[in-house]
Amino acid sequence: MLSDIDIAHAAKIKPIKEIASALGITEDEIEYYGKYKAKLSQSLFDRLADKPSGKLILVTAVNPTPAGEGKTTTTIGLGDALKKLGKNVVIALREPSLGPVFGIKGGAAGGGYAQVMPMEDINLHFTGDMHALTAANNLLCAMIDNHIHQGNALGIDPRRVLVKRAMDMNDRALRNIVVGLGGKVNGFPREDGFNITVASEVMAILCLASDIKDLKKRLGSMLIAYRYDGSPVYCRDLKADGAMAVLLKDAINPNLVQTLEGTPALMHGGPFANIAHGCNSIRATKLSLKLGDYCVTEAGFGSDLGAEKFFDIKCRVAGLKPSAVVIVATIRALKYNGGVSKENLSEENIAALEKGSVNLRAHIANMRKYGLPVVVAINRFGSDTQREIDTVKRICSEEKAEFAVSEVFAKGSEGGLELAQKVLEAAEKPSDFKPLYPLDLSIKEKVDVIAKEIYGADGVDYSDKAKKSIAEIEALGGGKLPVCIAKTQYSLSDNPKLLGRPTGFRLTVRDVSLSAGAGFTVVYTGDIMTMPGLPKKPAAENIDIDENGVISGLF
Amino acid sequence: MLSDIDIAHAAKIKPIKEIASALGITEDEIEYYGKYKAKLSQSLFDRLADKPSGKLILVTAVNPTPAGEGKTTTTIGLGDALKKLGKNVVIALREPSLGPVFGIKGGAAGGGYAQVMPMEDINLHFTGDMHALTAANNLLCAMIDNHIHQGNALGIDPRRVLVKRAMDMNDRALRNIVVGLGGKVNGFPREDGFNITVASEVMAILCLASDIKDLKKRLGSMLIAYRYDGSPVYCRDLKADGAMAVLLKDAINPNLVQTLEGTPALMHGGPFANIAHGCNSIRATKLSLKLGDYCVTEAGFGSDLGAEKFFDIKCRVAGLKPSAVVIVATIRALKYNGGVSKENLSEENIAALEKGSVNLRAHIANMRKYGLPVVVAINRFGSDTQREIDTVKRICSEEKAEFAVSEVFAKGSEGGLELAQKVLEAAEKPSDFKPLYPLDLSIKEKVDVIAKEIYGADGVDYSDKAKKSIAEIEALGGGKLPVCIAKTQYSLSDNPKLLGRPTGFRLTVRDVSLSAGAGFTVVYTGDIMTMPGLPKKPAAENIDIDENGVISGLF
Repeated sequence: MLSDIDIAHAAKIKPIKEIASALGITEDEIEYYGKYKAKLSQSLFDRLADKPSGKLILVTAVNPTPAGEGKTTTTIGLGDALKKLGKNVVIALREPSLGPVFGIKGGAAGGGYAQVMPMEDINLHFTGDMHALTAANNLLCAMIDNHIHQGNALGIDPRRVLVKRAMDMNDRALRNIVVGLGGKVNGFPREDGFNITVASEVMAILCLASDIKDLKKRLGSMLIAYRYDGSPVYCRDLKADGAMAVLLKDAINPNLVQTLEGTPALMHGGPFANIAHGCNSIRATKLSLKLGDYCVTEAGFGSDLGAEKFFDIKCRVAGLKPSAVVIVATIRALKYNGGVSKENLSEENIAALEKGSVNLRAHIANMRKYGLPVVVAINRFGSDTQREIDTVKRICSEEKAEFAVSEVFAKGSEGGLELAQKVLEAAEKPSDFKPLYPLDLSIKEKVDVIAKEIYGADGVDYSDKAKKSIAEIEALGGGKLPVCIAKTQYSLSDNPKLLGRPTGFRLTVRDVSLSAGAGFTVVYTGDIMTMPGLPKKPAAENIDIDENGVISGLF
Repeated sequence: MLSDIDIAHAAKIKPIKEIASALGITEDEIEYYGKYKAKLSQSLFDRLADKPSGKLILVTAVNPTPAGEGKTTTTIGLGDALKKLGKNVVIALREPSLGPVFGIKGGAAGGGYAQVMPMEDINLHFTGDMHALTAANNLLCAMIDNHIHQGNALGIDPRRVLVKRAMDMNDRALRNIVVGLGGKVNGFPREDGFNITVASEVMAILCLASDIKDLKKRLGSMLIAYRYDGSPVYCRDLKADGAMAVLLKDAINPNLVQTLEGTPALMHGGPFANIAHGCNSIRATKLSLKLGDYCVTEAGFGSDLGAEKFFDIKCRVAGLKPSAVVIVATIRALKYNGGVSKENLSEENIAALEKGSVNLRAHIANMRKYGLPVVVAINRFGSDTQREIDTVKRICSEEKAEFAVSEVFAKGSEGGLELAQKVLEAAEKPSDFKPLYPLDLSIKEKVDVIAKEIYGADGVDYSDKAKKSIAEIEALGGGKLPVCIAKTQYSLSDNPKLLGRPTGFRLTVRDVSLSAGAGFTVVYTGDIMTMPGLPKKPAAENIDIDENGVISGLF
C-alpha cells in the first residue's frame, strides 16, 4: 500500500468552492485560503441559526497504546462511509499543532485512504489559527511584563504571574526560563516558561466561545496573576482583551476542507485533552450540525479523558445532545493491554485479548453512563485473525454495545460501510444524554464522581497545595465550574503503567488551577508536559522541499 | 479630513481577482487569501521570465524626524498618480510587522488617501509570512538546543550560539533571558534572547532569495554557532534547512494587494533597515518589473541606510538597474533639522529651513553618486508656506535635482500628478547606475567608503571586539560580501543627536557579525535595538472589536 503522502499527492481533490457550494454556502459566507481551504464566516452562522440541527456522533477510543488506534482515521472514514450511504454528513475535527510535525509524530489529518486534504498545508500553517492564538497569548504576556516594568500600578506579584508565553514548537529549552534580564531598561527579572500553543488557555477559550462577543468576554475573564495582597488580576484589568480578540477575529471562524472522497470537514481548534478539554471548537461542531444531517466528530485520547470532557464540558456549555458514541479499538491495542509486548502483537493470542479487553469493557460501560448507544469499531490490521475479531464481537455483545469492523485505512469508505450502518441504527435509538455530574457539586465532589465512575478509583487524595488552591478558587467563585482533569492518557488510572482496567487505586491530585476564561478548573494528577521536546533525531532532519516545491519527509 | 481607518472603512475596493486579471495573471498563477489578498505563484515567475522588465523607481527620504516624512504614503500616491497618467505601474512595498501595531506606531500601509488595502488585515496577520518566518527561525533554535541536549555531537559551544529566537511582538522582557532551566530533562541552561521577527536573518534571507532553491541554500549557509574549538557550525550541519524551507514555501511568494485607487501593490518581506537591508523582497521587485512598465518601491529610513543598502546590497544581488530615485522630505522635517522644536514646526521659518536643508542637500548629493537622476518630493502639510516651498525648490535646483510638491495624503493621485510627471521625465534620462563600492575591497575598506562618501565621516574607528570579529569573518571567507551597516536612522552620523549634515566626526564600529545566509556582514555602530518594548500606555489598550466584527483603535 502507498504511504500517506503518496496517496495525498496522487489525490485529485475538488476546489473547496465546489464543496462549499454543495453545502449551500454562498460566496458572501466564505473566505478562501488558496484553492483548497476556506474559512466560514459569521454570516453563515446567522443565516442558519434557526435551521434544525443534525445528529451528533462522537468517536472516541480505548486508552492509547504504542500499537496505535486510528481514531482520527476512523472518524474520517466513518464520515466518508456515511456519505457513500447517501447521507448528508459533515466531519468536525481538531486542527493539528505545528510543533509535533518536526518531532516524532506523523500528521494529524488521518491516514491511508481516510485522510483530510490538503494534508501538507493542514499540518503546516493551515489558515493561521495557531499563529493567531500564539500572538494573542504572547501579546497578553508582553502587556503583563510591560505593566510591571512601567510602574506596576495594579501591584502584580511577579512571582505569581499565571499565564505562560506560548510557541507552536517542540522546544524543551523554553519550558523553564528567566526573563527580563539585562538591567533596568529590560524589565523585571522573573521566572517564566513557554507552553506549546495548544496547551494555552487562549486555545481552550477559542474552542468554547460561541461568537466574537463571547470570545472577548472569556479572554477578559482570564485569571492572569495575583497581586502582592493575594487578590486576583484578570486580563480585562490590563485592557488586553480587545486587542487579543482582534488578533483572533479570523481564527474564530471554522476552516472548511475535505476528505480524499470529497466529504466536507470542518477542522477548527485543537486544545490538549489533558490540561484542556481536547476537542474541536463548539462553533465548528454547531455549524457542522446545521450544514449536515449528521456530524461525526472526535475527542482526544481515550474516552476517560476526551469523551468525558466532550460530554461534561463541551456538550454542557454548548447545549449539544449527542446521538451515539463510537469507541475505536484495535486487536493489537487490546492484546497490548493484556500484557503482550509490542514486538509480538502480530501473533494471535486469544487469552491476552480476553484479558486486555477489560479496558474496552470499561470504556463501553463508561460511555453508557452518559445515556448513549455505543458502537465499537475495530480498526482492522492485516494480522488480526477471525477468531480474535469474533472474540471482541462477543465481548461487545456481553457489554450491550454494537460492533463493526472498520477497514477505512486500506479501503476508504468501502471499508467503513458496516460501521456506518451500525452508527445510523444506533443514532435512531432513543438516547437519554446527560452529563455525569451536576455543576453545583463542589470541586472535590466533582472530581470524586469522575474518579470513581470513569477511572474506577477507590477515592481521591489531595496534596496540601491542591487543598489550598481549591480554597482559593472557591473563594473566587470558580467552584461551580466543570472540572477538567489533567491525567495520563495511557491508563484509566493516574499511573501510566497500569493497563487494562486498574482497581484498588486512589487518584492523587497534585494541584488545581482556574481557567476562568475557558470556564473550568484544571485538576492536575501527576506531571503533565505542556511543552514537548524534540527527539534525538527530529523528523525535521528528513523534511525537505525540491526546486519544484515538492515536499518530502513530512510523514 | 477623515482618519486613516475611516477612509479605509469607507473605501470600495475591487476583488483582488480583478486586479490580478487586469495584470494578465491567470487563475493557476494565484492563490487567494480571502477576497482582497492573494499570493502569486512560482509559475507566474516562470511564464514571465523572458519578458522585458519595466523601469525601477526608488523612493527614499531624508533622515527621519519626529515631524514625520510620509515615505510610504508618497510611494503609494506616486504609484496611483502614474496610473492616473495612464501608465502600467506596480508598487512594491515591505509588509508590516505585527508587534509594533500594539505599541505606539500607526499602521504601515500608507495614510490618508494614499493607502494600501485591506489595511487592517495587512497590519495584522496578512497572509502569514511573518508567522512562517517566526516558525522557521524558532525551529532552527529548537534544533540547536535539542542537539546540545541530545549529546552535542557537533560540539556546539553553548556560550557561542549566534541565532536568537524570534517573536513578532514588542516584548522587552524577552531581550535577555536564560533558557534550559529546570534540571536534566529540560536541556542545558544558557543565555539567550529573542529578536523581533523582522530583525532575524531568516527575514533578510527571504527577501534576498531568488527562488525556493536559493532560499534553501541560503538558510543552510547561516552561521549559527561556533564549536568549542572555535570552528563554525552552519544551519546545514543540523539538517534544519529543508524543514525551514518547507515552512517558508508559501511565504516566499509575493502578496498582491491594491491601493485605495486600485493600483496593484506587491507587499512582501520587511527586514529592518539597520541590522538588515530594509527593503521588500527581490522576488516582489522583480515580479513588479515584469508585470508593470514601472515599479515604484521604497527602502527603509533615510537614504543613508535604506537606499545605500538597496543599491549596494539588493540591486547588486538581484542585478537590478534603477532608473530614478525620489527623495521625500517635509518642510517641517527640514526645519526640525535646522533646530526648530517640535512644537514650533507650523510657523514659517526660512532661516531654519535653509539651515536644516543641508540634510536634504547631503541626501541629494549621495544619491547622485549612484549615477541616478534625483527628484525631491515635498510631502506638503497645511502649514507649509509658499515662501518655504520656493526655498526648497531653489535648493533642489542648486543641487541639480528635480522638484515636486506632493499632496497625495490629502488628495490621492490628483495630489501626485506633478511628482509623477517629474519622475517620468527623470526615468527617461540616461542613467548610469553603479554600486558605491566594489566587493573585492576588504570589510574595513568598504565601511570606509560608505562612512566617508555617504555619512560624511572623517574616518572609522574599530573596537578591539570588532577587529577580532573582522579577522574571524575574513578567515571564514566572509570578507568579500557587501557590508550592512547598523546605524541610527536619525542622523547621517552614528550619533542620533547630530542633525543636519554633521562634519568632523568619526564612525565607531562596535562589532561585526556574519549573516552568511543573507550574504552580508553586519557592521554595528552604537546600540541597535532588535526587540522593541511597549510604551507606558500601549496602543493595544485601545484596540477593540465589536459584536459585528468592526475593529476600532487600530490606527
